[in-house]
Amino acid sequence: MTDFSATKAMFELPEGVIYLDGNSLGPLPNTASARVQGMLTDEWGQMLITGWNKAGWMGLPAGLGDRIGRLIGAETGSVVTGDTLSIKVYQAVASALELNPGRKVVLSDNGNFPSDLYIADGLLRSLGDDYELRVVDPEDVAGAITEEVAVLMLTEVDYRSGRMHNMKALTELAHTKGVVTVWDLAHSAGAIPVDLAGCNADFAVGCTYKYLNGGPGAPAFIYVAPRLAANVRPALSGWLGHEAPFAFDLDYRPGSGIERMRVGTPPIIQMTALSAAMDIWDMANMADVRAKSIELTELFIERVEASCPDLRLASPRNPELRGSQISFRFKEGYAAMQALIAHGVVGDFRAPDIMRFGFTPLYIDEGDVERAVEIITEIMQNRLWDAPEYKVRQRVT
Amino acid sequence: MTDFSATKAMFELPEGVIYLDGNSLGPLPNTASARVQGMLTDEWGQMLITGWNKAGWMGLPAGLGDRIGRLIGAETGSVVTGDTLSIKVYQAVASALELNPGRKVVLSDNGNFPSDLYIADGLLRSLGDDYELRVVDPEDVAGAITEEVAVLMLTEVDYRSGRMHNMKALTELAHTKGVVTVWDLAHSAGAIPVDLAGCNADFAVGCTYKYLNGGPGAPAFIYVAPRLAANVRPALSGWLGHEAPFAFDLDYRPGSGIERMRVGTPPIIQMTALSAAMDIWDMANMADVRAKSIELTELFIERVEASCPDLRLASPRNPELRGSQISFRFKEGYAAMQALIAHGVVGDFRAPDIMRFGFTPLYIDEGDVERAVEIITEIMQNRLWDAPEYKVRQRVT
Repeated sequence: MTDFSATKAMFELPEGVIYLDGNSLGPLPNTASARVQGMLTDEWGQMLITGWNKAGWMGLPAGLGDRIGRLIGAETGSVVTGDTLSIKVYQAVASALELNPGRKVVLSDNGNFPSDLYIADGLLRSLGDDYELRVVDPEDVAGAITEEVAVLMLTEVDYRSGRMHNMKALTELAHTKGVVTVWDLAHSAGAIPVDLAGCNADFAVGCTYKYLNGGPGAPAFIYVAPRLAANVRPALSGWLGHEAPFAFDLDYRPGSGIERMRVGTPPIIQMTALSAAMDIWDMANMADVRAKSIELTELFIERVEASCPDLRLASPRNPELRGSQISFRFKEGYAAMQALIAHGVVGDFRAPDIMRFGFTPLYIDEGDVERAVEIITEIMQNRLWDAPEYKVRQRVT
Repeated sequence: MTDFSATKAMFELPEGVIYLDGNSLGPLPNTASARVQGMLTDEWGQMLITGWNKAGWMGLPAGLGDRIGRLIGAETGSVVTGDTLSIKVYQAVASALELNPGRKVVLSDNGNFPSDLYIADGLLRSLGDDYELRVVDPEDVAGAITEEVAVLMLTEVDYRSGRMHNMKALTELAHTKGVVTVWDLAHSAGAIPVDLAGCNADFAVGCTYKYLNGGPGAPAFIYVAPRLAANVRPALSGWLGHEAPFAFDLDYRPGSGIERMRVGTPPIIQMTALSAAMDIWDMANMADVRAKSIELTELFIERVEASCPDLRLASPRNPELRGSQISFRFKEGYAAMQALIAHGVVGDFRAPDIMRFGFTPLYIDEGDVERAVEIITEIMQNRLWDAPEYKVRQRVT
């Protein structure tokens, strides 16, 4: 049984803040600072170039990949970390397309995170006019999976509403039509149990700065099913994906299995911070996290709906159909979120009218939810959002 | 006039080590640890998601780009940092190819860093069988620049020998033939004065963990000439290169100028360490660095050749034709380098027989060079390298 008071004690959380934005950027693990300091001083400072071997830097991309793999149902040796999520989406879609050489359509939905669509669109434009990015409504995806489709590219949990696709059912359907799947787990990894192996997924990608708490700009990860990895020609074929990077051969030969999806020199400082975050995940069980997340979100919906009739639920009411966030629509959502942040409840806003709240059992408990609802209620019932200082738009991530 | 004793005092260098491998991984700036600690604790820890605006994280990729730009003769607003060098090579070559739609040949040389060749080869394979990566000997590049060539992709300073291409002459020649140029500055930035604007360069890329001292896995940079930037369709079109990333539009519209070459969420912890390194560069003038580098390398060659007849110079003898490293060939170079490292002189080895020594005036002075030569002489004259423990091959970066 996961001890959530123990995991909560592992984070630095600012006084007076209830942080419901861990779905955007997770908080600082309280061992991260010392860990990074040690890496800088004792490894970079003292070992210099020899740190790549002596301090094990070269093994971090795959080592962290395996630690993340445990949370997403991936086989050992099937996940590596590196780059950004957009880059990993590109690698996955480009590599997947080559597994289906006769087909020219990438299917996605308009609930996907825009960067995934931008990346796929850019890739397909470079390949030629006969390629097509086909974007449908989320509820129309299943019907659009045809034998014309090369790759199905979906984000499992919608970043705006928290609505979940059924990964297992859609992957099975895709496979009956000969379609290769790419799943984006940005809002899944550390949020809900994922079973990549059990779903027979082909490719998956995700980021580590949201629920996984790896820090701003923490590296992304990529999964390739072991049954495919040896046959994939990696897009973005960089030297650290080479079979023998330090032979400096002029010709590229892909490394074994998932190693071929590595590209360039890994960001060791970021990976050190991420490793501190993964230590906390080692204390947790995803089934417990999910059960607790559902308790917290059910409590939040019930209390908010009871006290704030102006907020309309934008997330699925059935907890089995949503991830670990709750979104409400409100016409003045931008100003309301600014007012909330000013009063210590940090969520975020997504255009045009969505107020998002992330629930992260590792460090958010019932007491936090109850206090957050009291503050939301106070702001909504007294229209405290209706002040000029909350209406000035600034860029929010 | 650059005060090199002041810059040297800004680095943490381990006791008893003469570090001649700053061309591979620069040492730790002595402000980096506190700077990163502050970013982790005060920014990530306390500001959480609001750090993107409040702490200025979102401006780091372009801000650091401008600071690097000063060292490479780039116009303000023409450089951004992010990703890895391999990724930036891909972006540059793919974007450059589209500026020359009728042509299918990328020209490079076999002195280029292998990852650049791997990346270009992988890109061209994805585009179709009619594309060709043409790799010639470095001395044959000028003759191979024809009107068939779309993109000339070269690394200015050869990573093995330090031999320099003439960027200005080759770029001029390329332009007379309608060829777009991509220059890799991995061994140039911080090593030699570069004048991108004066050379009329088109694209350039580089890394920041070598001479720039940004730390292991520090981000790369990319330059696009201002006259081209507004017309470039960026390869790897991620959300942070979008005109309005936080509008979350479904369609991609490139950001203005160099901003469009951004891809995903920037690695803020790495960028914070890099910013500490760039503070030291603010104390330096590249003309002074170059003059000092030539003094140091001339001294090194003279002394080593006088005392170690088995080492054959593999770098150009004329300092105007080489970067800031000196390479010697020696059949037992691997073992000799291991012996040197064990005796406190850190250089590195590149197959098949090259011993590399990097000279970095920010923290290496004449005294270091003289002591290094004494140790090299002792090892070579007494064949101290001829011991089993130095012949076991391990992976060296």
